[in-house]
Amino acid sequence: MKLAQENQRVLLISSDGKRFLLRLRAGERFHTHKGTIDHDDLIDKPLGRQVFSHLQHPFVVLEPSIHDLLMHLRRVSQIIYPKEIGQILLRLDICSGKRVIEAGTGSGALTTALAYFVRPGGMVYSYEAREDMLRVARKNIRNAGLDDYVKFTQRDIRQGFDEREVDALFLDVREPWLYLEQASQALADGGFFGALVPTTNQVSALLAALKERPFVAIEVLEILLRKYKPVAERLRPQDQMVGHTGFLIFARKVSLEPSASPAVGEASACQEETP
Amino acid sequence: MKLAQENQRVLLISSDGKRFLLRLRAGERFHTHKGTIDHDDLIDKPLGRQVFSHLQHPFVVLEPSIHDLLMHLRRVSQIIYPKEIGQILLRLDICSGKRVIEAGTGSGALTTALAYFVRPGGMVYSYEAREDMLRVARKNIRNAGLDDYVKFTQRDIRQGFDEREVDALFLDVREPWLYLEQASQALADGGFFGALVPTTNQVSALLAALKERPFVAIEVLEILLRKYKPVAERLRPQDQMVGHTGFLIFARKVSLEPSASPAVGEASACQEETP
Amino acid sequence: MKLAQENQRVLLISSDGKRFLLRLRAGERFHTHKGTIDHDDLIDKPLGRQVFSHLQHPFVVLEPSIHDLLMHLRRVSQIIYPKEIGQILLRLDICSGKRVIEAGTGSGALTTALAYFVRPGGMVYSYEAREDMLRVARKNIRNAGLDDYVKFTQRDIRQGFDEREVDALFLDVREPWLYLEQASQALADGGFFGALVPTTNQVSALLAALKERPFVAIEVLEILLRKYKPVAERLRPQDQMVGHTGFLIFARKVSLEPSASPAVGEASACQEETP
Amino acid sequence: MKLAQENQRVLLISSDGKRFLLRLRAGERFHTHKGTIDHDDLIDKPLGRQVFSHLQHPFVVLEPSIHDLLMHLRRVSQIIYPKEIGQILLRLDICSGKRVIEAGTGSGALTTALAYFVRPGGMVYSYEAREDMLRVARKNIRNAGLDDYVKFTQRDIRQGFDEREVDALFLDVREPWLYLEQASQALADGGFFGALVPTTNQVSALLAALKERPFVAIEVLEILLRKYKPVAERLRPQDQMVGHTGFLIFARKVSLEPSASPAVGEASACQEETP
Repeated sequence: MKLAQENQRVLLISSDGKRFLLRLRAGERFHTHKGTIDHDDLIDKPLGRQVFSHLQHPFVVLEPSIHDLLMHLRRVSQIIYPKEIGQILLRLDICSGKRVIEAGTGSGALTTALAYFVRPGGMVYSYEAREDMLRVARKNIRNAGLDDYVKFTQRDIRQGFDEREVDALFLDVREPWLYLEQASQALADGGFFGALVPTTNQVSALLAALKERPFVAIEVLEILLRKYKPVAERLRPQDQMVGHTGFLIFARKVSLEPSASPAVGEASACQEETP
Repeated sequence: MKLAQENQRVLLISSDGKRFLLRLRAGERFHTHKGTIDHDDLIDKPLGRQVFSHLQHPFVVLEPSIHDLLMHLRRVSQIIYPKEIGQILLRLDICSGKRVIEAGTGSGALTTALAYFVRPGGMVYSYEAREDMLRVARKNIRNAGLDDYVKFTQRDIRQGFDEREVDALFLDVREPWLYLEQASQALADGGFFGALVPTTNQVSALLAALKERPFVAIEVLEILLRKYKPVAERLRPQDQMVGHTGFLIFARKVSLEPSASPAVGEASACQEETP
Repeated sequence: MKLAQENQRVLLISSDGKRFLLRLRAGERFHTHKGTIDHDDLIDKPLGRQVFSHLQHPFVVLEPSIHDLLMHLRRVSQIIYPKEIGQILLRLDICSGKRVIEAGTGSGALTTALAYFVRPGGMVYSYEAREDMLRVARKNIRNAGLDDYVKFTQRDIRQGFDEREVDALFLDVREPWLYLEQASQALADGGFFGALVPTTNQVSALLAALKERPFVAIEVLEILLRKYKPVAERLRPQDQMVGHTGFLIFARKVSLEPSASPAVGEASACQEETP
Repeated sequence: MKLAQENQRVLLISSDGKRFLLRLRAGERFHTHKGTIDHDDLIDKPLGRQVFSHLQHPFVVLEPSIHDLLMHLRRVSQIIYPKEIGQILLRLDICSGKRVIEAGTGSGALTTALAYFVRPGGMVYSYEAREDMLRVARKNIRNAGLDDYVKFTQRDIRQGFDEREVDALFLDVREPWLYLEQASQALADGGFFGALVPTTNQVSALLAALKERPFVAIEVLEILLRKYKPVAERLRPQDQMVGHTGFLIFARKVSLEPSASPAVGEASACQEETP
């Protein structure tokens, strides 16, 4: 049985489905449309149970999942959503111990997820040019308790990345095709490259640039998530859905040895045409 | 620079995009439509580079990602696909150190992914009634080098699970609604529950059963993945796509204290109606 | 060159893309966020051209399409959308001269489209139990100038339809499975049956009922429409889309002759299992 | 009660859901996997009923819908599918009496649908450069009994269209942006323009060209059709679906009067940015 700790973040869900993410602090009081709850009634008490507001409305108190954290992140920019992040994790082969570069940091949603999954032993190197974004992202990472797994750098990535031989690198920037040289230098041979862009024009520009460099196994895809109203006797998709966030592009960086045969020059010969 | 090891599995991609997953064994020879490659020319050599068949066709040799492993799994049943697995990981809050139950094992696709992401320190408890399935799954897990992170049990789960206080539990069985009592006993308070079913009738049956028990934050969704032909100057979605694999249902198991006020009895009062 | 007539409805589109559907009346003045336009400046003037408000903002004045009419319909209920209507027209084989029953009328969106396409020579028989709905639908049909092609009846369709041997029949009611006997009596042998329902439970109930009666070629489908921002250099799907309106069910009513061989009794033997 | 006529085309559906479109000819015999049926047993007999093969397998004999005709069209090229055609009909405001141009004809799928819906009183002017395509399309139109409603012309449309003041014009050609001048000359002011292209690059090129000419109300969209297995107790989407056929672009051609105020010169000022 897990007990809620002071300073821990917990998820409260009211009987009408409203969700609240709050940090427990001794002596504080949480106010909702369904009455108040004293933090002291939660601290050092079991998680995963029902509690009641002073108006006797039931709430459940839960440890937030990484999905909950991502959905409640403080945002100063369009964030990468869990539906894309799940795919990114598998495609970039993120797991405990990996060293990963991302740029730009933005509000830190992907940063949070990457840091969560490289634990323990891994590290996320996150680059962002804008100080205001970086400030929010730092706060989000600190709130998630993931400081030890992220190294932030404020920089225009035209100047390159400091790390070498990283396992994976993800670009969430407006013109990712401008930074493929920098990405290639940072990635280990065989390293995983990913990018997210919102427009088809950007996809085309990135594809063209990737094919001029030693990137192979190039794939483009998008993820659509369709939610249903969870009512047994009237099951149906929700009326509205997110129609678009972005296109995901994945590739692997390889080395084309200088001593190789003529075919080597034709990097594009190795491009994968997805069947 | 990573070197390919004997007995390691590597991914070979030919210049026309064909993918081959093979285990390196000294003295063996790999035959393709584009010529042969001696395993000895790969063993103890760098990964992430170009190699040539005896016909001088270029291949790239890569360390497979978890995504590659999942897509090349030996199958004796419909597997859970990466598009769902990415979402499952985030929803069930899988990460290093977690203890997770799944049933049924099937071919072991989700087993593989769960084991991959609970490393180090975690454990997957995988239950399957059919011995033939279990045999294939064991082999797939061994091939992936994940034996230390999976404990298989051959059992009809009507008899319950052996573990208690697990962090998450996933059901990929025909009638998941029959096993909610068993699932509740195994899950810690606040634990993550998930299930995948192919038909809407099963979704309705599971929703009805979940609402009779202390499960909250119930959500139903499906994931659609749309692939594009990765050609810069002729960008377009692929002609065919997977139209359906299954519906995902997620919930959290909570404790409704026996000593509570009348409202406690109404477990359904805590059900979340996703807006 | 077409001239706008008094009493005609025209579509005005402002330079910032706002759309206005108005009926031209001599002496009236149209007020917008971009200035006013005198109806007299439009009446007896060419359609399909640019006009200017008194503030010199450009508008285009157009004859509305059936799609425009449907999107600007006065609504007192959830309407059937053009994305479904296009499919319904082709599936029910609607065209000039056809006799079609629909129930319930609702706001009259499908009524409008059916009437539009059975011209000339055809007729739509529209049934609705609620008087308030019927009043709005009548007005919408009159506004569209389609009075001659629709016969409205206020009735609970449990009492059956007045027409016989109709070419097609569409049910947009909560429990369409209750009225299959009535539908069968009204439809010609080989006639087209269609229905729209929002939940999967309703689809299942209707399918079960259809299979107990002489309906064949049963199909279930849904239509998703994805809009793009029409910007050449930043092409992308819109952020939000309609995730669900309803499921469409189509079938053909056939006669199973009384004098036939034993196999005839098995109406279900003729059901089509879509591969 | 409708009787099948000699020379009429009928749809036969076997008890296992196989569909056959055949033309009835006295004395002929139809062979299937479920036995043979004499055409003479169908001619002058009622439609919409069950018939039996010589092996006593039940079939239903039906009048084909326009949807059936389109799905059984003889094809020498990628055709425009009913899911798009339904939308095109509503967007181009096709109905009895309309005059419509299309190019290229291809196999004649859209031609067939347009001809079907402009009856009576309307006309489709169909242009195609390739003689082999035209031959197939002519045959398809003749088979559908729609000769009186289509005028075919073999021509490279760079040379323009012969008609003027047409109500609507649809381009299903590789580079539709090259023919906007020709399209503008043929279309009435306010006329409906549509096009279908498979790649995003083509969409961008067409959008850029449309914005340089007096086209307004520009929209880009795509239609996804999801089929379900029509089984009441195991309802689910089909495993595979069509992931892409093409993007639809719609616009209205307007006149920008020469004598107008300075704002008139800015044709783009009238472009609609879909919100």
